[in-house]
Amino acid sequence: MINGYAATEPKGTLKPFAFDPGPLGDTQVEIKVEYCGLCHSDLSMLDNEWGMSQFPLVPGHEVIGTVAALGPHARGLTVGQRVGLGWFAGSDLTCEWCKSGNQHLCANTVGTIVGRPGGFADRVRADAAWVLPLPEGLAPETAGPLMCGGVTVFNPLLLWDVLPTARVGVVGIGGLGHMALKFAHAWGCEVTAFSSTPDKEAEAKGFGADHFINSRDPEALKKAANSFDFILSTVNAPLDWQAYVEALRPQGHLHLVGVVTQPIAVPLFPLLAGQKSISASPTGSPAAIATMLNFAARHHIQPTVETYRFSEINDALEKLRHGKPRYRIVLKP
Amino acid sequence: MINGYAATEPKGTLKPFAFDPGPLGDTQVEIKVEYCGLCHSDLSMLDNEWGMSQFPLVPGHEVIGTVAALGPHARGLTVGQRVGLGWFAGSDLTCEWCKSGNQHLCANTVGTIVGRPGGFADRVRADAAWVLPLPEGLAPETAGPLMCGGVTVFNPLLLWDVLPTARVGVVGIGGLGHMALKFAHAWGCEVTAFSSTPDKEAEAKGFGADHFINSRDPEALKKAANSFDFILSTVNAPLDWQAYVEALRPQGHLHLVGVVTQPIAVPLFPLLAGQKSISASPTGSPAAIATMLNFAARHHIQPTVETYRFSEINDALEKLRHGKPRYRIVLKP
Repeated sequence: MINGYAATEPKGTLKPFAFDPGPLGDTQVEIKVEYCGLCHSDLSMLDNEWGMSQFPLVPGHEVIGTVAALGPHARGLTVGQRVGLGWFAGSDLTCEWCKSGNQHLCANTVGTIVGRPGGFADRVRADAAWVLPLPEGLAPETAGPLMCGGVTVFNPLLLWDVLPTARVGVVGIGGLGHMALKFAHAWGCEVTAFSSTPDKEAEAKGFGADHFINSRDPEALKKAANSFDFILSTVNAPLDWQAYVEALRPQGHLHLVGVVTQPIAVPLFPLLAGQKSISASPTGSPAAIATMLNFAARHHIQPTVETYRFSEINDALEKLRHGKPRYRIVLKP
Repeated sequence: MINGYAATEPKGTLKPFAFDPGPLGDTQVEIKVEYCGLCHSDLSMLDNEWGMSQFPLVPGHEVIGTVAALGPHARGLTVGQRVGLGWFAGSDLTCEWCKSGNQHLCANTVGTIVGRPGGFADRVRADAAWVLPLPEGLAPETAGPLMCGGVTVFNPLLLWDVLPTARVGVVGIGGLGHMALKFAHAWGCEVTAFSSTPDKEAEAKGFGADHFINSRDPEALKKAANSFDFILSTVNAPLDWQAYVEALRPQGHLHLVGVVTQPIAVPLFPLLAGQKSISASPTGSPAAIATMLNFAARHHIQPTVETYRFSEINDALEKLRHGKPRYRIVLKP
């Protein structure tokens, strides 16, 4: 039996939930959970915001643990090895996207908490292809949030070939944004934090921001026009997109990783005259996750976390629901 | 004196207009006009649609001619040489964009017909940096439209590193779109034309389209979901942007070169899940124009044009105003 925490209905509280996972799949890994990050998408899934939740729902998809068991064809890992697991626990591994190293774009991805039990449990399973060894030098206590939030903000730097010479803006300094500041700083960029919470300025600078802009101040935004090569938005609320497009320099990219449900509306002219783009991405491929973990280890990057026990999970969810954690929550058994 | 055709007020008819251009600038070239394309932006400028027209206005910015005179510091050209001139006639040549070969993104570009007389005249002037030699093998009678419309649809293939393996869609089969079909076909791509005019199918296929989709048919658009690596929109009217984003495969790009005045509104989710982008660009740099001209010469690409005499210029403008030319108009003295 696996012992986890599940909600039995949308927005329900999480309660202890034991289930028989059946035999381990041929290419599956069973991970003994040591730590699991709490991500905003756990809340979205709990609330069935995206209409794809199945109950009972065991959230948790930023897992750090050790390999407890391996299916007979689960390759590349050894029992006892410390590993991480993120948003995806599987993909078909046969389509062109999987074959070309873009497994996260596979049409048949399996979300770790979509229709299957996640990491708020003593053990969790995933396909070996999506279970990444944790490099030496990354503290397991804080590494969980790298597995989903971390790669989500890191992958855009890879996708857009962002150079260390770039002027980078990070919009929204929360769970995702604070990691983006740390990565962009270590990447060698000149980094500006945009936040609607002016009292985060000192912390943002501690995370690596060179500059801080109060995003609620229209004058400050206007003054930032034509300043950035790359702006990464991590917020899940509509912004003044035009102002951010105008804040880009020619050839600049506005890249969104926060899930905004309202349409993004921008006037064409600043995009066209400045040869700019707007784009978005989900998490990253296993190779991108591995690259991110190695970069984090080499640059001593770790998420800034608050740690709760699994037994305090509903308190942690409440804290996240009201946007209060500074900056990311990790649960431990 | 230079003898041209000018309108004295917005939407006015063009009348013969003689003016003294003064001494030739140090780095300027005077071109004896042989042919000049008529571009939709001539009409937009004539109508003062973008609020930057100055009257009397001499339109015309797709010039083919020969070098009649060179300023003392106009380098790289010789008198009598056949050349082309497009949307821009100058830029500051000192900023980072000019220095890095992105002169079309310079903040101080000089539009050929913006506040100065254009190519609907016997002679026109421009900075030598923006005057490109016409390669051998390009017919001067039809090359004019390459200088603005041509590079506008060609440059995106360079900007986005489009490969010959790409599935490319071209939306709007008019002056720009028909050149895009020819370029994308010669580029080696699998090309689909989207047009609201079903009777253009045979011609579109003649220009190089492998497939044709009636863009007014919502079912046909829906069936095209997840089909394209790159979609180039040349239309200047709002489209069902969501349908075109959904028509992209993962990692696909929707690129706009038609000037749409209404905001572009797209839902985030298909952009994010498919790691897609929306972008736009104006014309191209002198280097991009030269690359395009050489590619056109090597692949025997020429715009499909209707030719009018300068004395018939108002008839030509009326024809363009009602969207009727197939596919581009060229004027000759």
